[in-house]
Amino acid sequence: MKTLSVELGDRTYPIHIGTGLLDRAELFGNHIAGRQVLVVTNQVVAPLYLDRVLAQLSPYRVESVVIPDGEQHKSMESAMAVFGTLLECRYSRNATLIALGGGVIGDLTGFAAACYQRGVPFIQIPTTLLAQVDSSVGGKTAVNHPLGKNMIGAFHQPRCVLADTATLATLPDRELSAGLAEVIKYGLIRDPEFFLWLEASIDGLLARDPELLAWAIERSCVNKAQVVAADEKETGERAMLNLGHTFGHAIETGCGYGAYLHGEAVAIGMCQAADLSARLGWIDAVDVGRITALLERARLPVIPPPELSADRFVDLMAVDKKNVDGGLRLILLRGIGQATLPVVVETSPLRETLERYGRG
Amino acid sequence: MKTLSVELGDRTYPIHIGTGLLDRAELFGNHIAGRQVLVVTNQVVAPLYLDRVLAQLSPYRVESVVIPDGEQHKSMESAMAVFGTLLECRYSRNATLIALGGGVIGDLTGFAAACYQRGVPFIQIPTTLLAQVDSSVGGKTAVNHPLGKNMIGAFHQPRCVLADTATLATLPDRELSAGLAEVIKYGLIRDPEFFLWLEASIDGLLARDPELLAWAIERSCVNKAQVVAADEKETGERAMLNLGHTFGHAIETGCGYGAYLHGEAVAIGMCQAADLSARLGWIDAVDVGRITALLERARLPVIPPPELSADRFVDLMAVDKKNVDGGLRLILLRGIGQATLPVVVETSPLRETLERYGRG
Repeated sequence: MKTLSVELGDRTYPIHIGTGLLDRAELFGNHIAGRQVLVVTNQVVAPLYLDRVLAQLSPYRVESVVIPDGEQHKSMESAMAVFGTLLECRYSRNATLIALGGGVIGDLTGFAAACYQRGVPFIQIPTTLLAQVDSSVGGKTAVNHPLGKNMIGAFHQPRCVLADTATLATLPDRELSAGLAEVIKYGLIRDPEFFLWLEASIDGLLARDPELLAWAIERSCVNKAQVVAADEKETGERAMLNLGHTFGHAIETGCGYGAYLHGEAVAIGMCQAADLSARLGWIDAVDVGRITALLERARLPVIPPPELSADRFVDLMAVDKKNVDGGLRLILLRGIGQATLPVVVETSPLRETLERYGRG
Repeated sequence: MKTLSVELGDRTYPIHIGTGLLDRAELFGNHIAGRQVLVVTNQVVAPLYLDRVLAQLSPYRVESVVIPDGEQHKSMESAMAVFGTLLECRYSRNATLIALGGGVIGDLTGFAAACYQRGVPFIQIPTTLLAQVDSSVGGKTAVNHPLGKNMIGAFHQPRCVLADTATLATLPDRELSAGLAEVIKYGLIRDPEFFLWLEASIDGLLARDPELLAWAIERSCVNKAQVVAADEKETGERAMLNLGHTFGHAIETGCGYGAYLHGEAVAIGMCQAADLSARLGWIDAVDVGRITALLERARLPVIPPPELSADRFVDLMAVDKKNVDGGLRLILLRGIGQATLPVVVETSPLRETLERYGRG
């Protein structure tokens, strides 16, 4: 087991990465203060791992909530179901929530923990690659609104993250690829060596080589933990983690939550961000080609859905929360391994990027 | 105008108290960073004060949301209406929310501000006595759940509080009395001199003597600001502000939100807390008599609703968020002006208190 630390003063917490962590009761017990525990999971994960988690929690009163699978269930309705169970069980502000699942479950459970009785502790047990390398770390929690993704949320750090890499064995191929999109993102924004390593290792990662996966997760979490420690509330450099996300959120909202996996939408968005960066003269065509090629080799989509017109894209992107006071602000690239802070982008090159695909 | 300060490090903010503050544009402008403003108010307050507030906001893009009046609208549905308007208007994370109204509007707007895009700034303009002396100060925000009051919320401090005492001229008598319940609470929990002053001044306060009201508001806010500055997140002494509230929340939830005003339910709850404190031998019958008499002179109810049985009371109180891990913890009195920290109470004296009224 490898342990990293997210350094946030009195909210500092560990990320444990390794195989078989789900069976180690002491890792749970170290981070549960009261006697009441609620496990939130989904219908796909519950049959695979819920019993094993419950087996570690025998010293506690434990209840569970099982949400249907899919991004469309990262909703206020799901959060209200969690609140309802907590209240029916008379759980106090000393209760601990456990998120067992992917990014949807982690974001939803974290949001419920942030708001129940104005904040109770929670533990992240990410079971997808995407959640292990990104969403379980850093304390961003949210539910979606029909008009925009992650628009209702809170910063609420977990007490610990338990990333059991053995759970990736049951992950569908499509979700493995979606997770690799966020892994590749770290290389792109701030870790050019890691990008090179990914170019060399992508086939092994897709073949689920355990050592390669463990290393990719660790390196991703090191990057994420450093960025979060430097800028917890995203007033500065944390924004670079959103590379491709304003495009990606537009795709997710515009096509209906669930049509694209988050990582798939981000992969397309990173290609669009690279294309736009090249149009602004900040990176060259070779870089765009390398980025697109690596994402394609990771079996990710790199072309936006043809049903989203440039007009609709602009409309959807304007809602995204990275946009301050109406100006459209995007994270772009100055090179592979070097993201910008948010930059206000002129309409004209942006429209060229949006119109390049399909109808271009 | 009198200005107090809630000392919370980089979240320190002023409370301005005085007449005519609604017409002073500079008080708004000092605390609005972006160009987008959303005013949230209710159907009673809007016709009285919304235009005056909008007149101060001409430099900004301003939208407003008008919620129906009443505690039953301090709900997630109302919060979703606020989120919907913010998103339809494409408001960014640089938008400022303004709460114009009583405690329901302040708590609801504060919660929406806490969660919209993981937190945007907000300003409190309390227009009821209760909101001016209590709920607008200290950053507790929440909506109610059908199973429990204030169960979904966040700590989110406002950028400033503008308490225009002239708005109390339009306040219904019943709401004036409800506000006095929280004023009396400060005397009871930590300010015995203030309690004496209230005994001497209660008739003048009910007659809405402006100088007496202004002094009562200021002294209440000084007390609240000191408690909040010492214990923002209620890990210790802030809990004493909940005197009477666990009983009161049970009454509000048990009788349906809106049947009792919050201050009315708290008045009954403080009488119950005093009765229980006397049963434990901590205060004497004379103290209980003085407390009950002052609340009655303030035209507040002092006897719980007969339809709530002792069993139902215990059931409802067990849900209240001050209760940690199942034990029933209450704020009680060691004297007038001296509240306890939360104490675990035996069932037997508690039931005696609950059964004393109506069916006793």
